[in-house]
Amino acid sequence: MRNNDRPPELVHGGDWAGYAEEYGALPLDFSSNVSPLGLPEGVCRAAALALEQADRYPDPLCRDLRKAIAAAEHVDPAWCLCGGGAADLIYRAVLARRPRRALVTAPTFAEYESALDLVRCRTVLFPLREDAGFLLEDRFLDAITPDTDMVFLCEPNNPTGRTTRRELLLAVLDRCREAGALLVVDECFGDFLDDPAAHTLKSLLGAYPNLLIVKAFTKLYAMAGLRLGYCLCADGGLLDAMGRCAQPWAVSGPAQAAGIAALGEADYVREVRQLIRTERPWLAAELTRLGFRVIPGEANFLLFFSPVPLGEPLRKRGILLRSCENYHGLGAGWYRTAVRTHEDNRRLIAALEDIRRDKTT
Amino acid sequence: MRNNDRPPELVHGGDWAGYAEEYGALPLDFSSNVSPLGLPEGVCRAAALALEQADRYPDPLCRDLRKAIAAAEHVDPAWCLCGGGAADLIYRAVLARRPRRALVTAPTFAEYESALDLVRCRTVLFPLREDAGFLLEDRFLDAITPDTDMVFLCEPNNPTGRTTRRELLLAVLDRCREAGALLVVDECFGDFLDDPAAHTLKSLLGAYPNLLIVKAFTKLYAMAGLRLGYCLCADGGLLDAMGRCAQPWAVSGPAQAAGIAALGEADYVREVRQLIRTERPWLAAELTRLGFRVIPGEANFLLFFSPVPLGEPLRKRGILLRSCENYHGLGAGWYRTAVRTHEDNRRLIAALEDIRRDKTT
Repeated sequence: MRNNDRPPELVHGGDWAGYAEEYGALPLDFSSNVSPLGLPEGVCRAAALALEQADRYPDPLCRDLRKAIAAAEHVDPAWCLCGGGAADLIYRAVLARRPRRALVTAPTFAEYESALDLVRCRTVLFPLREDAGFLLEDRFLDAITPDTDMVFLCEPNNPTGRTTRRELLLAVLDRCREAGALLVVDECFGDFLDDPAAHTLKSLLGAYPNLLIVKAFTKLYAMAGLRLGYCLCADGGLLDAMGRCAQPWAVSGPAQAAGIAALGEADYVREVRQLIRTERPWLAAELTRLGFRVIPGEANFLLFFSPVPLGEPLRKRGILLRSCENYHGLGAGWYRTAVRTHEDNRRLIAALEDIRRDKTT
Repeated sequence: MRNNDRPPELVHGGDWAGYAEEYGALPLDFSSNVSPLGLPEGVCRAAALALEQADRYPDPLCRDLRKAIAAAEHVDPAWCLCGGGAADLIYRAVLARRPRRALVTAPTFAEYESALDLVRCRTVLFPLREDAGFLLEDRFLDAITPDTDMVFLCEPNNPTGRTTRRELLLAVLDRCREAGALLVVDECFGDFLDDPAAHTLKSLLGAYPNLLIVKAFTKLYAMAGLRLGYCLCADGGLLDAMGRCAQPWAVSGPAQAAGIAALGEADYVREVRQLIRTERPWLAAELTRLGFRVIPGEANFLLFFSPVPLGEPLRKRGILLRSCENYHGLGAGWYRTAVRTHEDNRRLIAALEDIRRDKTT
């Protein structure tokens, strides 16, 4: 099935359910970028325990969870709003702000534009050029005009895995402030960077109330199915407005309990970060060896170009890969693969070798 | 704490977390209207099992769940959209339809108006009069004018527990069709009626594409903490638009699994319905005996008027009751109580007796 034939809900990777419906089995999923180590045991236990009280409405204010996040992130709990995944918060930010003109890079995560479409915002796409390694370039600053209401940056960017140098990020932040624009920085994959602390804009929240940082438990803790994200912002009025932009009980009880437990999983985090740090270069080298053009991503996934179609041949071999054909600024031949365990990664490489040998597949 | 001092997220009942923060213990909660029998065991097991695969994104299309709901409701799966609770679907319906003028009864569930406020809709409140037993009256039809875009009815109505006679519902449906208005009928408490099948408008979906029925697993299966609701509508275009009005992964994996399991819990449903049928009249009689004015509700909760304040005195006794002071059309002195198990109900009545004796509390 080609991405373009899919319902809008299926523009992303991770459609294991569609695969299961077709093949009667679960695939090895390289199409969604979550930790390959599965849900931490302690998180699973906490969520299961919370099920016993799932007859109660979840705390709409996520009081305990927000306190735990604030402590972990070293920010004021009042600067934190939780949602049912980062995507929920992206929609809320757009609904609360109702921008008329927004700036989004291409390629990037599709939900920014989907959310902006919902409020009929004019979305200006800023192309990231392959020649520039898909890095954000200085001329981005010129694209932030006085009529820009909202700017989205994904750091590291999905699907390229690239980050913007800090100097340029700060200039963007200043330019947004001058323009009266809200800068939404999606740091969902930030914890997979070699040095997350050096890249996050968290320390600037107080100085820039026009900065909204979006994060999720989804990727680092493999909690995609539970739906839990949060955002950090010093503009209390914006967070209040975001709170009113959807139902009051967006974060389930089990997700709140799981989030609190996850923040205590320091060993798990160390382990998964170490794994990604080891496997990413290995996978990149192997993909290059097989003749693919690999973008030097810095997160838990890699973008690469293939001269031959890979989606269906891998699917037939029980593996899901994310076709990036439906990203603005990419097209046929571009794929994104998650970085998984060494065994999984070897299976992917073996399947790709097989496909490269047998082009008639 | 008075309702009016609360953040907007706390306009409803069920704030056990606020109570726990203040008292260090969980209250006996009569302030939210869920089944008092707790999560069915099979549902809890299914959700716990789903946690093991919570590293995967949930199926955004809820394929298996929608099939199960469609089979249980005897409708086409294409007529069903799932969401993270009924409230999620109410917001989506409003965002998809973007009404400019809407009609809502007073009193009723607050989220209709909150959602309408989000799109800056002019909401016309139609008063339900106590003199008429809070029943919807024929003159409601005159309030549906050609410029009405959306009409909300809650059947049975929250917080009154009253239902509208079928003849009038059909006339409302016709009038809405003439006006080009979408009629949203919230049947979240419909399964607690003595004869749910006689009251649901489900059989009219095919004939009226302007009818959207909202339902939830929240109340009947005590699944409030898991967040799962759905809506039924024959207008596929509207459901598609609703699907695009928020993030694609609104229903968590555990919630999807729990929903499928819940639909097999026929014994649990029989038991809770029988319990409510027995306890509701007992509770109503006891409240009347204590000098409260009780509205003859038909669901798993009762609205009543008290000449003395009850919120704080009950709170001090470990019990949460829903003050209805912040409902349009009600005011100080109105309370809503859930119907719970006989033991719980006796505890409530004993506490109320205590308060009535000791007015200085």
